[in-house]
Amino acid sequence: MVINRWLNSVAAAGKHLMRRSPQEKEGIAALCKQLYSNKGEALGIALADEVARAYSTLDPEQKTAFFHTLADDYNPDPELIHQCAEAYRDSHSLSAYRSLARAIESPRQTLFRRINMAPSGTRTVVSMREDLLQIMTDDDALSAVDDDLQHLLSSWFNPGFLKLKTMDWHSPAIILEKLIEYEAVHEMQGWDDLRRRLDATDRRCFGFFHPALPEEPLIFVEVALVPAVSRSVQAILAPHDGEVDQQSLNTAIFYSISNCQNGLRGISFGNFLIKQVVMQLKQELPQLQHFATLSPVPGFMKWLNTIRFDESQKVISEDERSKLIALDTPGWHLHSSDEALKVLLMRLCAHYLLLEKREKAPLDPVASFHLGNGASIAGLNWLGDTSSKGLEQSAGILVNYQYDLDEVEQHHEQFFNPGEIACTPAIRRLLTAQP
Amino acid sequence: MVINRWLNSVAAAGKHLMRRSPQEKEGIAALCKQLYSNKGEALGIALADEVARAYSTLDPEQKTAFFHTLADDYNPDPELIHQCAEAYRDSHSLSAYRSLARAIESPRQTLFRRINMAPSGTRTVVSMREDLLQIMTDDDALSAVDDDLQHLLSSWFNPGFLKLKTMDWHSPAIILEKLIEYEAVHEMQGWDDLRRRLDATDRRCFGFFHPALPEEPLIFVEVALVPAVSRSVQAILAPHDGEVDQQSLNTAIFYSISNCQNGLRGISFGNFLIKQVVMQLKQELPQLQHFATLSPVPGFMKWLNTIRFDESQKVISEDERSKLIALDTPGWHLHSSDEALKVLLMRLCAHYLLLEKREKAPLDPVASFHLGNGASIAGLNWLGDTSSKGLEQSAGILVNYQYDLDEVEQHHEQFFNPGEIACTPAIRRLLTAQP
Amino acid sequence: MVINRWLNSVAAAGKHLMRRSPQEKEGIAALCKQLYSNKGEALGIALADEVARAYSTLDPEQKTAFFHTLADDYNPDPELIHQCAEAYRDSHSLSAYRSLARAIESPRQTLFRRINMAPSGTRTVVSMREDLLQIMTDDDALSAVDDDLQHLLSSWFNPGFLKLKTMDWHSPAIILEKLIEYEAVHEMQGWDDLRRRLDATDRRCFGFFHPALPEEPLIFVEVALVPAVSRSVQAILAPHDGEVDQQSLNTAIFYSISNCQNGLRGISFGNFLIKQVVMQLKQELPQLQHFATLSPVPGFMKWLNTIRFDESQKVISEDERSKLIALDTPGWHLHSSDEALKVLLMRLCAHYLLLEKREKAPLDPVASFHLGNGASIAGLNWLGDTSSKGLEQSAGILVNYQYDLDEVEQHHEQFFNPGEIACTPAIRRLLTAQP
Amino acid sequence: MVINRWLNSVAAAGKHLMRRSPQEKEGIAALCKQLYSNKGEALGIALADEVARAYSTLDPEQKTAFFHTLADDYNPDPELIHQCAEAYRDSHSLSAYRSLARAIESPRQTLFRRINMAPSGTRTVVSMREDLLQIMTDDDALSAVDDDLQHLLSSWFNPGFLKLKTMDWHSPAIILEKLIEYEAVHEMQGWDDLRRRLDATDRRCFGFFHPALPEEPLIFVEVALVPAVSRSVQAILAPHDGEVDQQSLNTAIFYSISNCQNGLRGISFGNFLIKQVVMQLKQELPQLQHFATLSPVPGFMKWLNTIRFDESQKVISEDERSKLIALDTPGWHLHSSDEALKVLLMRLCAHYLLLEKREKAPLDPVASFHLGNGASIAGLNWLGDTSSKGLEQSAGILVNYQYDLDEVEQHHEQFFNPGEIACTPAIRRLLTAQP
Repeated sequence: MVINRWLNSVAAAGKHLMRRSPQEKEGIAALCKQLYSNKGEALGIALADEVARAYSTLDPEQKTAFFHTLADDYNPDPELIHQCAEAYRDSHSLSAYRSLARAIESPRQTLFRRINMAPSGTRTVVSMREDLLQIMTDDDALSAVDDDLQHLLSSWFNPGFLKLKTMDWHSPAIILEKLIEYEAVHEMQGWDDLRRRLDATDRRCFGFFHPALPEEPLIFVEVALVPAVSRSVQAILAPHDGEVDQQSLNTAIFYSISNCQNGLRGISFGNFLIKQVVMQLKQELPQLQHFATLSPVPGFMKWLNTIRFDESQKVISEDERSKLIALDTPGWHLHSSDEALKVLLMRLCAHYLLLEKREKAPLDPVASFHLGNGASIAGLNWLGDTSSKGLEQSAGILVNYQYDLDEVEQHHEQFFNPGEIACTPAIRRLLTAQP
Repeated sequence: MVINRWLNSVAAAGKHLMRRSPQEKEGIAALCKQLYSNKGEALGIALADEVARAYSTLDPEQKTAFFHTLADDYNPDPELIHQCAEAYRDSHSLSAYRSLARAIESPRQTLFRRINMAPSGTRTVVSMREDLLQIMTDDDALSAVDDDLQHLLSSWFNPGFLKLKTMDWHSPAIILEKLIEYEAVHEMQGWDDLRRRLDATDRRCFGFFHPALPEEPLIFVEVALVPAVSRSVQAILAPHDGEVDQQSLNTAIFYSISNCQNGLRGISFGNFLIKQVVMQLKQELPQLQHFATLSPVPGFMKWLNTIRFDESQKVISEDERSKLIALDTPGWHLHSSDEALKVLLMRLCAHYLLLEKREKAPLDPVASFHLGNGASIAGLNWLGDTSSKGLEQSAGILVNYQYDLDEVEQHHEQFFNPGEIACTPAIRRLLTAQP
Repeated sequence: MVINRWLNSVAAAGKHLMRRSPQEKEGIAALCKQLYSNKGEALGIALADEVARAYSTLDPEQKTAFFHTLADDYNPDPELIHQCAEAYRDSHSLSAYRSLARAIESPRQTLFRRINMAPSGTRTVVSMREDLLQIMTDDDALSAVDDDLQHLLSSWFNPGFLKLKTMDWHSPAIILEKLIEYEAVHEMQGWDDLRRRLDATDRRCFGFFHPALPEEPLIFVEVALVPAVSRSVQAILAPHDGEVDQQSLNTAIFYSISNCQNGLRGISFGNFLIKQVVMQLKQELPQLQHFATLSPVPGFMKWLNTIRFDESQKVISEDERSKLIALDTPGWHLHSSDEALKVLLMRLCAHYLLLEKREKAPLDPVASFHLGNGASIAGLNWLGDTSSKGLEQSAGILVNYQYDLDEVEQHHEQFFNPGEIACTPAIRRLLTAQP
Repeated sequence: MVINRWLNSVAAAGKHLMRRSPQEKEGIAALCKQLYSNKGEALGIALADEVARAYSTLDPEQKTAFFHTLADDYNPDPELIHQCAEAYRDSHSLSAYRSLARAIESPRQTLFRRINMAPSGTRTVVSMREDLLQIMTDDDALSAVDDDLQHLLSSWFNPGFLKLKTMDWHSPAIILEKLIEYEAVHEMQGWDDLRRRLDATDRRCFGFFHPALPEEPLIFVEVALVPAVSRSVQAILAPHDGEVDQQSLNTAIFYSISNCQNGLRGISFGNFLIKQVVMQLKQELPQLQHFATLSPVPGFMKWLNTIRFDESQKVISEDERSKLIALDTPGWHLHSSDEALKVLLMRLCAHYLLLEKREKAPLDPVASFHLGNGASIAGLNWLGDTSSKGLEQSAGILVNYQYDLDEVEQHHEQFFNPGEIACTPAIRRLLTAQP
């Protein structure tokens, strides 16, 4: 801590040491203008730091105004673009290409790159995008600002710069509290629940970190090491004790993956995270044979409710439609001795996952993510998640997406070319199952 | 070390674990093609790692061939650019702008971004540029490859991502040996010389590091803490001992600044480095009052030799020209009791620094760098560097560029606007000095 | 974590690699016998590790039996002591002295030193003493075991080996949870309370750590930085927010000091901890002028209740005695507009602190500790701690013991020689205060 | 570095902050007296620090005087010892034992324990012993001081407190330079030689460190990983390059073990070091099958030269004696085509190792060390070390002592009980070999 304080005080000192113009308290717009000018080169970090501090004090309205300033004042010059485009058309020379590329690049990118030089620069740029995404609607002008932020952040958060870190009970509290805050799939019930998920010998938690945000996980995955593929998330989350026979643990279940930074929305890490974790676990524990998720089907009930009331659909019969009325009764799963309902819902879920697509990809976002990564569907689990969220979104069904690194390439090829979805024969049989 | 080895073995394991197509030993061009395709997304790091390993085994000829492949096969499509440019001209819409920007961006950038995902990706991309700069002449085609590399590296090596680190006798040997290797201004004579420069209580060494290259300084500066502005570099480099009175040290002399990575040529860090070091030193040692370099004038003798033999010049008289013949005798500085020669050379050096310009900036690259950063000329030191290199390039003269953080902004403004060079009156008087 | 696991697995491997005699599952007594023999030298760490593991599985009864084995079988030989004592009396030679010293030293010390060689050896020896102190009564035999443990632990936990560490919200959760567990003065209400005490810019927490127990604080102190000496602990513990003006903080209040390791009872660190923290804070925050505790008077009420009902005492008059009946009503402090009661209790507390002694030292253990360390009494605070524990033990009064490093030596001398207690005149005046 | 400086400045601050008596510059004897008194408790670290600083400025004569002061003024009281011994004889009570033990313990131990509290305390105590060992002859009085130092240092440097660390090219220069300095077996030729020994993938270096001396290796071992047991140290030390086939490396050769701290003479770590390194290497590289040293026979030539000229010996015949004259010619080993000489010397060396003993242990100190640790003799290598030191001490012969963890216990038992030396049959056959 002493060190952190000391570093902060260097930054603080910097602010005071490199004294600038006498006028105090310039607005953020004026500061940005200076930072963008050639002053930015000379005063560099000190000026960027002033912008970052100024931004941190803005209220929501001021932020909106600031983004509009960015949208209005830092655009490329269309006239220059036309001229350069014509010159390029005429010569096709490298120098004409360069001029055109320079003319196209938005001045905002230069500005954001300079803001990034501040001690808390990267954090500030990520926050700006987080704020912008909340403000922005379909407003064309602000979209252009977002384009530039997303372009830069994609480049800066290249997977080559990320560090995979294990998080456990030895990790700093300042990091662990973020796991509690950001867990998006199966909410954490405070520090005791966290400890249960991290500290057992058959649990692991891995996350990606960026060097400029050393205390901020970008994404993390919670893993249970188990003797056989898990079919219920409540079984994993329940307190458990007793000795674990390490040698019997042959399966790693990824039961929760959470993104942490709204400001990095649309910049995908999950793909890389899962595969790196598979490699690291296989290295650490050679006895592991299977790697699979235990994932919700978040779009299932929404889709089901659409077709249920759509007269024109051909997926369910009249008879089945009436069966589905059972779902409208809260707690239906508790007395679901109804085998026919189970067979029906499992068939519909298999149908939804394997056959319902949008532009060749599965309609379900989670399915689309894992199958696009080269995973295959290895299991559909009836009443795998009986939390209210699980029932509401996925009718309680959980999917095991299996990651077999030897087959990732082949699955991926099939997925993108013929558009085939990799799954076990048992899953495919569900499509035609009858009670 | 165990850890490093372990991490490497994870990467190694990755290579084997994520087995790909049966054909072994694909050429780097084929690997890049796969990496650029959507396979790149699925196989990510493993495929990038194969490209990096393949690149590391290329001989110079194969590298040249590889760069030409990059130059030929990963260009933007001119026809698409024209179409998008026209569409943009017609609509001026954001979506048209986006299409144009996408069409302009070279596919090579995507490829390099994916190579960067490998465990040694950043190192590989930096090496590629280092190699390319050696191969490239004025060959238009390869310049386009360099444009893309430079664009990405500028973004990735943004000062906001760099860490300022102190290097001393507690630093890892693997880093220190690089200081010996890279010292570009005053060559180091092995480990004893290094220790002398690092380990004394009145010496410091600071460098910038990037998180992806943790054992590679990007640039470093050597600092001597002294009781008064130093006028001779040999005095600084000489072995010295005896107790140092810490309280008397009121001046920090930056006597050597060296860039370490040829692959990052043209991406400037020096500016930021000096100012951050000034702030950090001021924080650590509040008694420090003055911060100045002790710098060569590397272009002085070259310029002097040009005008000496140029009949049309008006800078030196016939009489002075004959005086300068003395410089042609090796060892002239040893018996330079000739005060007139000193006055003449100091005047000419002041003239060169203050008045000789190219596009408003000083002709001398070191002067241009420091003055553009907002420093001022605080001293010209006769026979400040009597090494053979110092005599050959700078006629033995060394310059003190002073960094006064309170005046950096003002100096910078003057430098860029009226084009005025900040210096002390004494320096300006040299312009008209007579023996 | 990976690393920790790996280290543990080295120890685990060691156990298996260095295979010993075929008979598995020897009892701890047999293992100790081997470890004490010259086998202990050859098998060293592996054998010590077996003892440590065996100890960790003992139930309370087995532990008692084990300590009795230690008490019976590892004693020095009285006969040998007599012989050596006589030889020494006759020769007074160094070699006779050596023989006598060797004869005196208990074999248990050798045994404990060898147990300490195990990877978890120090932890095991500290646990043994913790268990022993719970079992031991006035049993002579086991006292001898405790003597040896205390002797070794005093030597091993020499202050020169301890590290002062700052604990804050960046510390590992595994350490922070121990602060919650061990806080002995003002109990912590879970993680939120902990965060409040650690993470504010005007709070600090320091602890001593031993390198062999890197995740176990030995003792820690909680500090509040305030603009004036605090008079109430509830004010310190209350949630607070709003910006803190760092420059106004001129006083450090040590409001809670807790020992963490029962196995180290009687080995004093508090003395060193406070002084080192004073030095470190003064270094970090030169504006700090005052350093004082806010301490309970844990023996006050007990003493008061003794004299209240003692006819022979001369401290309180009959009138005052009847006044004190008020204390027997729960919640008396809430409607204590009774100034006379306050004056009386403050007088009695001053009397208790300054005049009631046992063997020259103050009767109150906390007073004895701080005054013996060279502190002085700077304040008595009426209703400084209105928690039930505070009222019960200290009648709600808190004391400020002030640490002025310039006067520590002088106070200490006075305390030990004339037996004078350092305090302000105001405190001394309390002794004779009348309502 | 910043951190180190900062810590030192805390200590420095401490010195000034905790101001003591006005008289400056007290002698070390006076300071020790204060530290030993109850002032030592109050002023603790600050006073210990003054003693440490005072000691560091003493010249050799002053050190001698200081040790004599310690020898004279800090002895136990013989009269008190007698009284306590008698009381113990009479009562045999625990309290009498305690009094006797207290009376026996030398006051010097208390003093040294308090000196150890200084920031550089442990270093100071180790230095004191290093200096004392140089001064001390057979002087009884100073031996008593050494007894106390050795007693404390043995306790403090218990193997349970030591950390095994890998040293390689990533280690701090300040540690690596000590390897160059301390290498006692095969001298290092500077940094290039060091790098060769550390940085290759088939070399390792391990050392023990104590937490109080984090930059001082206590002992280190250099290891070569090879495909078969090495028979020549020059082959190991020679520069080598080319790829190493990691999988072929099935043997670890410990070719150099060096103690670093003269102040810890007689406190054995080597035993523990070798076994821990064996375990760690086996964990890291499971393919390793054999662990053996490549050790000199440092007493061989000395012994041989004694018996050569001893008429009464029966080990060598007259004929053989004349053969040995060859050894007196420098460079004899270069033209040693003399197979008979080889057979003779190998026989004599086997004889020396297996049969020549002092108090049951082998006469040769290196043999005694390894065999006592449970190793066995696995090979005798003719001309294994042709350096001048190797020829002079060991007639060029090197021994492989093999560490097989499964047999360590059995070898150790045999060694200590029947006094049998474990070796291969081939070694035993050498005893009777004829040319």
